[in-house]
Amino acid sequence: MHNYLSIKDVTNLNQLVQVAQQCKAQPFAHQALGKNKTLVLLFMNPSLRTRLSTQKAAQNLGMNCIVMNLQQGWQLEFEDGVRMDTTKAEHIREAAAVISQYADIIGLRSFPTLTDRDQDYADFFIQQLTRYASVPVVSLESAIRHPLQSLADALTIAEYQKKERPKVVLTWAPHLKALPQAVGNSFVEFMQQRDVNLMVTHPKGYELAPEFIKSTPVEYDQAKAFENADFIYAKNWSSYESYGKILPIDQDWMITMKLMQQTNNAKFMHCLPVRRNVVVEDAVLNSDHSVVIEQANNRTFAAQAVLKRILETKR
Amino acid sequence: MHNYLSIKDVTNLNQLVQVAQQCKAQPFAHQALGKNKTLVLLFMNPSLRTRLSTQKAAQNLGMNCIVMNLQQGWQLEFEDGVRMDTTKAEHIREAAAVISQYADIIGLRSFPTLTDRDQDYADFFIQQLTRYASVPVVSLESAIRHPLQSLADALTIAEYQKKERPKVVLTWAPHLKALPQAVGNSFVEFMQQRDVNLMVTHPKGYELAPEFIKSTPVEYDQAKAFENADFIYAKNWSSYESYGKILPIDQDWMITMKLMQQTNNAKFMHCLPVRRNVVVEDAVLNSDHSVVIEQANNRTFAAQAVLKRILETKR
Amino acid sequence: MHNYLSIKDVTNLNQLVQVAQQCKAQPFAHQALGKNKTLVLLFMNPSLRTRLSTQKAAQNLGMNCIVMNLQQGWQLEFEDGVRMDTTKAEHIREAAAVISQYADIIGLRSFPTLTDRDQDYADFFIQQLTRYASVPVVSLESAIRHPLQSLADALTIAEYQKKERPKVVLTWAPHLKALPQAVGNSFVEFMQQRDVNLMVTHPKGYELAPEFIKSTPVEYDQAKAFENADFIYAKNWSSYESYGKILPIDQDWMITMKLMQQTNNAKFMHCLPVRRNVVVEDAVLNSDHSVVIEQANNRTFAAQAVLKRILETKR
Repeated sequence: MHNYLSIKDVTNLNQLVQVAQQCKAQPFAHQALGKNKTLVLLFMNPSLRTRLSTQKAAQNLGMNCIVMNLQQGWQLEFEDGVRMDTTKAEHIREAAAVISQYADIIGLRSFPTLTDRDQDYADFFIQQLTRYASVPVVSLESAIRHPLQSLADALTIAEYQKKERPKVVLTWAPHLKALPQAVGNSFVEFMQQRDVNLMVTHPKGYELAPEFIKSTPVEYDQAKAFENADFIYAKNWSSYESYGKILPIDQDWMITMKLMQQTNNAKFMHCLPVRRNVVVEDAVLNSDHSVVIEQANNRTFAAQAVLKRILETKR
Repeated sequence: MHNYLSIKDVTNLNQLVQVAQQCKAQPFAHQALGKNKTLVLLFMNPSLRTRLSTQKAAQNLGMNCIVMNLQQGWQLEFEDGVRMDTTKAEHIREAAAVISQYADIIGLRSFPTLTDRDQDYADFFIQQLTRYASVPVVSLESAIRHPLQSLADALTIAEYQKKERPKVVLTWAPHLKALPQAVGNSFVEFMQQRDVNLMVTHPKGYELAPEFIKSTPVEYDQAKAFENADFIYAKNWSSYESYGKILPIDQDWMITMKLMQQTNNAKFMHCLPVRRNVVVEDAVLNSDHSVVIEQANNRTFAAQAVLKRILETKR
Repeated sequence: MHNYLSIKDVTNLNQLVQVAQQCKAQPFAHQALGKNKTLVLLFMNPSLRTRLSTQKAAQNLGMNCIVMNLQQGWQLEFEDGVRMDTTKAEHIREAAAVISQYADIIGLRSFPTLTDRDQDYADFFIQQLTRYASVPVVSLESAIRHPLQSLADALTIAEYQKKERPKVVLTWAPHLKALPQAVGNSFVEFMQQRDVNLMVTHPKGYELAPEFIKSTPVEYDQAKAFENADFIYAKNWSSYESYGKILPIDQDWMITMKLMQQTNNAKFMHCLPVRRNVVVEDAVLNSDHSVVIEQANNRTFAAQAVLKRILETKR
């Protein structure tokens, strides 16, 4: 593996999940691999889980880790050929090439605009970084994907599944703010390559982009979608069609115990942070249905598996 | 020791001071203890000494250290059962449980509101964190206590005391802003367990909370309190009674050389940062009375002793 | 070497460039030197290259590195004898002495006011830090100098020079904002000690301070200065005479391919970040003339050479 931007960078997902499982079983077994290697993490947006888990993964592998919060004070120009007479002090060409001098691997978190769909769905920022970097790039959540989350999700489902080909339901859930489609997109993309029975449920108008949903079945009746589910993955996203908008809906899509009771005693998953009693009832999160904490724990081993594979490839 | 939130977590303070002295004598003697252990430090408020000294202590012990500044961009809900439709994006239940996945020990700095005395004196934030974390929690100064500072203070007094049972005076001093009572509270709580002759002096209206001051003598005449003192510990705090307020006072309580001359050639202590010529005269800080720099140095070994004891207990 | 604030701290520049070359050839050869040593980096202003390269240099040497961003929330008083009743919470006397307790070496970035020339040219902040620190201080760019940059520049010229005594031209270039003179000052100061044919070119009114330019030839005709140049070092700075001002100029000083063609196939240097098509044409940066990325890479080994020499001296 060179870069890790999407499922397309994974030649064998089953194998990568196994590497993550091995990292979880023996987190400190490969510290020679990362010795004197530096991971630089660039955050254009806030992060808790991704930052902590990726830093922990790097340390487990014996790597050094340098974190740069770029939310303020350092604006990048991503367009080519422009006269840089704005507030943007540095071009991605220089920034990417320069950081590549100090890093063995670069991680980037960069959220979407939610206003310019073409730019967001070209995954413009991380693609430009990857283009001009001379070292591997790992997505810490880009405009349209969150592949480290999805690998942790795949690992979590592998750990908790009680039968072959479990029914996995991705359900839209309410939120106050317009959120990216990244987690949903990426989850669908990964699950399509796993041996699961995947279904997506959301209100009309919240259809995921065709390039992601592909032929995955969509059920507009949430209660019906929950029937016999083994895993319920809840996540809010804003509309792709009415890009970045929150649409009026005519029922409450919050995940409740009542809904969970229609499942096959399903495990409840969420990437966190989660707004209690908006996205999901307290009762669900506080019950044995919830595996969100172990799911968060698995972020470390997803990141560690990816870093390990990249380091092995570089060698 | 599991958590370190207050003197109540210390079974034997004399022994803990000795551990700190040993850490100071041989800072790098226990690096195997911290190998592959991660300390996550969460700062809801700014910090210089606490951050640097605790990070240094962790590194002395061979631990990894990850610092999160949470002043902006990540607001936590601490109340149970609420509908999270405000600006608070994550509940302490998830945050604490999740960070526990990545950390072997969590440190939290969280200042008081200075408006809600009940919440502050329940030490609500750090108690909620401790409740929901699955790993030990260390206070980096909470709403009402600063126990790492107090341990460093105890170590400093042990180093500089010239006689048994020295007279130790905690004196209120002026400041421009309404400050927490944490340092004073915690200092009193620790000194009550040391073999010292403790006295507190402050203007009327600045009485510390009864649960902290207990039977420690209070002298309202500052000059009189200074007589024969071996240690003068200066600190401002806002009123507990008129909670969080700055009260009008009718004399200047700034620590001067004139005041110091009434002592038994006392050592001058302050937790820093200190506003010169507001809290204390330049002349005192620049004189041999002052031990504030060594006191700051001792922060490292106080933190190291606490981390060491927690790591030993976990093993 | 104790401190590293300017060329005056370098007893033998040729030797220091050689140390940097050795560090580049074998970056991890001296990790015992930095073991259990801590570098504290204080940033009063933003930084990308300096932060990453210095942190990398420290890690290459086996040091621990702690970064403090002090842009917000922690204001220092640098004047002596004042009553600290302003927003400045701590005096440099305490701050410097305290940080010295936790650090083996302190780095400081502190930009000029660009309004108070006397204070800036006394290099007031870093001089006060150095005065009150009890450990070595390294400049990460002060009000008037950027000596780590200049050492990287000297290393870069040594690597790319094809003949003895190459012609090195420092050329002023346009910018939108009033920038410090630090890079230009420091570059001139270093080059005056190298075996190069140094020339400076800029519009009238942009003369560098006499204490820096000394007897170095100044050519006001940019095109003429470029003739037969082996290295073109471009950098904007604001006026020293009309202190901190941007002056009206009557031609475009942007570096173009047309200008580069008048050189002896010169290498193009810039400390970055660079505003494309304002300071320099895209065509130059994208051509083989440009060595700016390797120049940025050399920042690591410049910092490493300086840290190495300081650690060796301390031992």
